[in-house]
Amino acid sequence: METSFEERLKQYGRVGRYLEKASAFHCDVNCRLFLGHLGNHLLNAADYHSSDRGFGMRSLNKINKTWVLSRLVIEMDEMPVRYENFYVETWVESAMRYFTNRNFHVQSEDGRSLGYGRSIWALIDTETRQPTSIMDIRDGELANWVEPTRECPIPKPGRVKMSSDAPLVAEIKAAYNDVDVNGHVNSVKYIEHVLDLFPIDFFRQTMLSRFEIAYVAESYFGDTLRFYKEQTGETEYEVRITKVAEDGAETECCRSMLRFK
Amino acid sequence: METSFEERLKQYGRVGRYLEKASAFHCDVNCRLFLGHLGNHLLNAADYHSSDRGFGMRSLNKINKTWVLSRLVIEMDEMPVRYENFYVETWVESAMRYFTNRNFHVQSEDGRSLGYGRSIWALIDTETRQPTSIMDIRDGELANWVEPTRECPIPKPGRVKMSSDAPLVAEIKAAYNDVDVNGHVNSVKYIEHVLDLFPIDFFRQTMLSRFEIAYVAESYFGDTLRFYKEQTGETEYEVRITKVAEDGAETECCRSMLRFK
Repeated sequence: METSFEERLKQYGRVGRYLEKASAFHCDVNCRLFLGHLGNHLLNAADYHSSDRGFGMRSLNKINKTWVLSRLVIEMDEMPVRYENFYVETWVESAMRYFTNRNFHVQSEDGRSLGYGRSIWALIDTETRQPTSIMDIRDGELANWVEPTRECPIPKPGRVKMSSDAPLVAEIKAAYNDVDVNGHVNSVKYIEHVLDLFPIDFFRQTMLSRFEIAYVAESYFGDTLRFYKEQTGETEYEVRITKVAEDGAETECCRSMLRFK
Repeated sequence: METSFEERLKQYGRVGRYLEKASAFHCDVNCRLFLGHLGNHLLNAADYHSSDRGFGMRSLNKINKTWVLSRLVIEMDEMPVRYENFYVETWVESAMRYFTNRNFHVQSEDGRSLGYGRSIWALIDTETRQPTSIMDIRDGELANWVEPTRECPIPKPGRVKMSSDAPLVAEIKAAYNDVDVNGHVNSVKYIEHVLDLFPIDFFRQTMLSRFEIAYVAESYFGDTLRFYKEQTGETEYEVRITKVAEDGAETECCRSMLRFK
């Protein structure tokens, strides 16, 4: 028998908190956790949090609905170092009809703040791939999970202001390891491909302090992905990813912004 | 004060056992853990096991020595499915002067055998990059950690029998996400690049039952890596990876064998 909202709230609370580890081979040349792996920990936290509270992917898939990540922002003061344990906290900031805002707080094991994340998720129908109302799930119960008291002191995702003539800097074909259980190129893989456009000395000499990505259209195994990269500020870059159809037409898949310090 | 061998043996035993999870976004289009991520779990298990017992990377690095993975074989009957917890057991099969054999057993949470792994590690001096004697560490104590009673019922790594005219099928430049804390292309990344040479239907229709890789020479950020691939049996493929020097000379970095069933 399904548990009531009150029972789940009592058991889990509104904020999820998960202990993770920066494992040895998930760390970069600076001995710091790769941003892609941190992103993966945030997405896992979102999955655990929503599953425990009755609106996770697996239960939604049974009613032909799923969450689709629309935006992700990560802003870090400090990245976990190799072998460091850290906590990922996550909560729902707000729930609209078609979108929900979920925030993250990354903390060291002893409670020091390392950084924050913001994400926006759409609920879609897995058959039509069209947006579907969040308020139809359990009579709009998601609104009751909103945690209004927790702050997320980083700016919301901005508007990417790339010019239309940003140069093409790389082209790849989406391969086996890019594609997740849904058959789509995985959200984290786009992050990795974007970071791979930068020389390693960038990561040795500066720190990636803010990363934003907007997921616009899905891409699939075998798709040709093109990367357009532009410097938009002294320490700021933007990258647009498109997929190329057989007739050569390009569709935008992602836009991202990176700020180093 | 350092603990004695007897105390460590009493505390940890000779076999390490670690609970892992096939997390959502570490699974492929079949909802099964990617081999690269499984490989990463095995390497982590090796790291935890050796660190607890006093001969881990971190303590060896302080005396300018490090472990280098020379061979890895993974043979699976079944890959963990999405969200499945599984155990990785690991132990030292034998220790010679310059090499040690470490085995792995992957089990489901309820104790069913999922598959096995074998690995060979060399100890090198981090300054000269030359082999150094394992028997010089703690008066050859590693020999006392050998676990003679555990079986590993999969064949030892074989000899890769590629012809010299195997076709070149891909070329990439080693990028930021390929490179680990040592500045080398990470062992697991080679595995991922090898698997990315196969169409996704291969993984949908067949199961990769045995994967072998021999690490011959290290490669670094920015190196051009070339992949030569050849079908060597009905369900067997071999892949050689080379790096290309500025003068065009090629050095072999890895050789690998894949068997599907």
